[in-house]
Amino acid sequence: MADLLLDLVVASRTLAEHGVIDAYGHASARSETNPQRYFMARNLAPELVTREDILEYDLDSNAIDANGRALYKERFIHGEIYKARPDVKAIVHNHSPTVVPFACTGHEMRPIFHMSAFIGLGVPTWDIRDAQEGTDMLVSSPYLGAHLAKQLAAHPAVLMRGHGSTVVAENLPRAVGRTIYLEMNARMQFQAVMLAGPGGYINYMDDAEVAANVSWQNYDRSWELWKKRALER
Amino acid sequence: MADLLLDLVVASRTLAEHGVIDAYGHASARSETNPQRYFMARNLAPELVTREDILEYDLDSNAIDANGRALYKERFIHGEIYKARPDVKAIVHNHSPTVVPFACTGHEMRPIFHMSAFIGLGVPTWDIRDAQEGTDMLVSSPYLGAHLAKQLAAHPAVLMRGHGSTVVAENLPRAVGRTIYLEMNARMQFQAVMLAGPGGYINYMDDAEVAANVSWQNYDRSWELWKKRALER
Amino acid sequence: MADLLLDLVVASRTLAEHGVIDAYGHASARSETNPQRYFMARNLAPELVTREDILEYDLDSNAIDANGRALYKERFIHGEIYKARPDVKAIVHNHSPTVVPFACTGHEMRPIFHMSAFIGLGVPTWDIRDAQEGTDMLVSSPYLGAHLAKQLAAHPAVLMRGHGSTVVAENLPRAVGRTIYLEMNARMQFQAVMLAGPGGYINYMDDAEVAANVSWQNYDRSWELWKKRALER
Amino acid sequence: MADLLLDLVVASRTLAEHGVIDAYGHASARSETNPQRYFMARNLAPELVTREDILEYDLDSNAIDANGRALYKERFIHGEIYKARPDVKAIVHNHSPTVVPFACTGHEMRPIFHMSAFIGLGVPTWDIRDAQEGTDMLVSSPYLGAHLAKQLAAHPAVLMRGHGSTVVAENLPRAVGRTIYLEMNARMQFQAVMLAGPGGYINYMDDAEVAANVSWQNYDRSWELWKKRALER
Repeated sequence: MADLLLDLVVASRTLAEHGVIDAYGHASARSETNPQRYFMARNLAPELVTREDILEYDLDSNAIDANGRALYKERFIHGEIYKARPDVKAIVHNHSPTVVPFACTGHEMRPIFHMSAFIGLGVPTWDIRDAQEGTDMLVSSPYLGAHLAKQLAAHPAVLMRGHGSTVVAENLPRAVGRTIYLEMNARMQFQAVMLAGPGGYINYMDDAEVAANVSWQNYDRSWELWKKRALER
Repeated sequence: MADLLLDLVVASRTLAEHGVIDAYGHASARSETNPQRYFMARNLAPELVTREDILEYDLDSNAIDANGRALYKERFIHGEIYKARPDVKAIVHNHSPTVVPFACTGHEMRPIFHMSAFIGLGVPTWDIRDAQEGTDMLVSSPYLGAHLAKQLAAHPAVLMRGHGSTVVAENLPRAVGRTIYLEMNARMQFQAVMLAGPGGYINYMDDAEVAANVSWQNYDRSWELWKKRALER
Repeated sequence: MADLLLDLVVASRTLAEHGVIDAYGHASARSETNPQRYFMARNLAPELVTREDILEYDLDSNAIDANGRALYKERFIHGEIYKARPDVKAIVHNHSPTVVPFACTGHEMRPIFHMSAFIGLGVPTWDIRDAQEGTDMLVSSPYLGAHLAKQLAAHPAVLMRGHGSTVVAENLPRAVGRTIYLEMNARMQFQAVMLAGPGGYINYMDDAEVAANVSWQNYDRSWELWKKRALER
Repeated sequence: MADLLLDLVVASRTLAEHGVIDAYGHASARSETNPQRYFMARNLAPELVTREDILEYDLDSNAIDANGRALYKERFIHGEIYKARPDVKAIVHNHSPTVVPFACTGHEMRPIFHMSAFIGLGVPTWDIRDAQEGTDMLVSSPYLGAHLAKQLAAHPAVLMRGHGSTVVAENLPRAVGRTIYLEMNARMQFQAVMLAGPGGYINYMDDAEVAANVSWQNYDRSWELWKKRALER
């Protein structure tokens, strides 16, 4: 468990360094000993997270040991997805900037770069307005979290209209790597769409290539680098 | 008052770090004890501002305690807006790069990202040429400041053609946060407009969502991060 | 040989600093004493490479002195090109972000900037799908490496669909410089294509200009700078 | 003279920090005591320039005190412009990335941002091919330097096709500031052209505004900041 908490520190700092979360995203990991629990920081900018800031939550997103510390308003993203998806062990909610234009235009994200192959498993878009009119855009209730989880379904990520995205995986390095390369894919796909012009052809990864890549891609070599960078600071 | 001056140092460095002001923007805050006064740095690049550089001004933008120190030529932006808008407690004049193409093309800014919800309150564009022909583009007189304030009206920000923008708020963290996320929104909206193509649909925040978000959004978690970064340097 | 290993350290760190490789590219250099051998790091993010991490390989990409250390899966890129191209003394495999949109749309890269003149010698695109269906996109076998080398032919670089590119040269500074300026050219060419519009004219370098430039361009002054930066860290 | 040499160090480092020169641009200043002489570094990346690296040149671009040190191949840019333009006291030759797409498409640069008002004085484009076919693109002879100077004429800058630009001014801070804001203008104008679409209207600074601004704009507050940054390193 100690390692998992340290990995959450690494994840938080790495996501901030890559500009895919500002002060407002969060990374979580399911407990390795109790699948009905997950770990995530208290209400704090990810860049500032230390081991001592990480709390344990139940799947209704109640903190077990808050001791009066404030919690993320959007913690229900995590709890509700962990409920709906027993395969998911790690979640990143981000404000990745270049996915927002895709989410707001309905332009489908496609896997244009092999490091982003997981996009080929499908990345739906969730519009909070379909769940509730007139929200402040935050996933601040169990209902909204469950509605998001339903749109995520079995996919590796869900874009959130006017907001960012939520990315899930079987382990934390994979969730962090997918988040970083979702942003990279968005930038590359934007340029490809512009170069190709209306109706132009873009050669994306095909389903067989996606399947061959996502089966093993845990961003191991990246994680080693990110860990070294994060802990040296 | 001591805290407000320190907050102005934090604001100045934070805006510089985020690239929304170069050597030429400025942040101000209305005095908490005398609403006819405001605080702002002497003529100095924001990145270099320390507590000792901050002067007190009356609403005609005369410095009370300049002691021969040079003043910003565009201080009238601040004084005239404080006169016209009693609700405004903090102002940022910036050279945010991506708003300029919007201001020069008449392309309306719309709220595409929940951190930028305030844009939904309306962001008009001011053209200095409508106030005076042949200026050097600087708001260097009470007349120009008042003309800008009139175009701002009750809005949270006003774009300035060929120049940047001026952003106002009920407190300094909100003014700083709005400035940073105005730039983010411009970048995202630019890409969305390109992806959507001429006449294409973009799903912006609606009025109810805007209203629900702007009522509480003070960028608290960001401010905590920015303060820590600014004061550690 | 000591200098060549140090130069590989400089090359690795420089490529990472310029954002043309993430954790996954690699630079190699042919042995100066035995043309049937080349040097390249063990499986490690380039940013972390030190002299001790560099191994010697034969042209079948077997490591001579691995001592159990893990190897890059895509080392066959290097071995197979060294086999096919006796003139090549250095190779960089990269994930240069802005070349991917070119490779995926079939938009031909052309030399728009004199530092990137070598592009005028022709930069073909390789699609791994033409060699093998359903791969994970990695050049992880001698067959795939040889297929890539065949598409590279006598050119200075080959774009890799959905992946990045591989750049070759007569010496390591030239291979590193070409990699960095291939990315710069992609960014400039993207903007020029957008400005020119469909069918618009772009004034690229002509063949005589390319020939006059590539004959001597070793990026000497850059290399001196990059070496100083890389070794000071 | 000591101050002018120090200012050249500040200029070199500042231009590198702003990404408008890579290892290959150079800044020069005319001697304050002998208008037939100018100062510029030996052949060295600008980022590395110290006071000891700065040499004195005559207007034929012979170094007076090289003592065997290598010279910039393109020093004739400087000498020939100083000959042709007695009003010019400082010159920056740069590889500013976003001006290249303008120079290669014939898209005229216009002043879109008040910090870049000088563009309104006219920024012609020079194509080295008009002077000589089949060059390596470098201004490596007095003939080419004089040809460039002729195209510059009385303007504040000249774009160089496939290369970058050369910017001139009455003093060094102005030449450095103009170089940095030429790049900023190119980025903003690119986005405005995209937003406006073919034939769309862009509200540029008009001639009276340009005239009112360029008369005094020496980037004083920027220079104070850049000097502090450059000398603290």
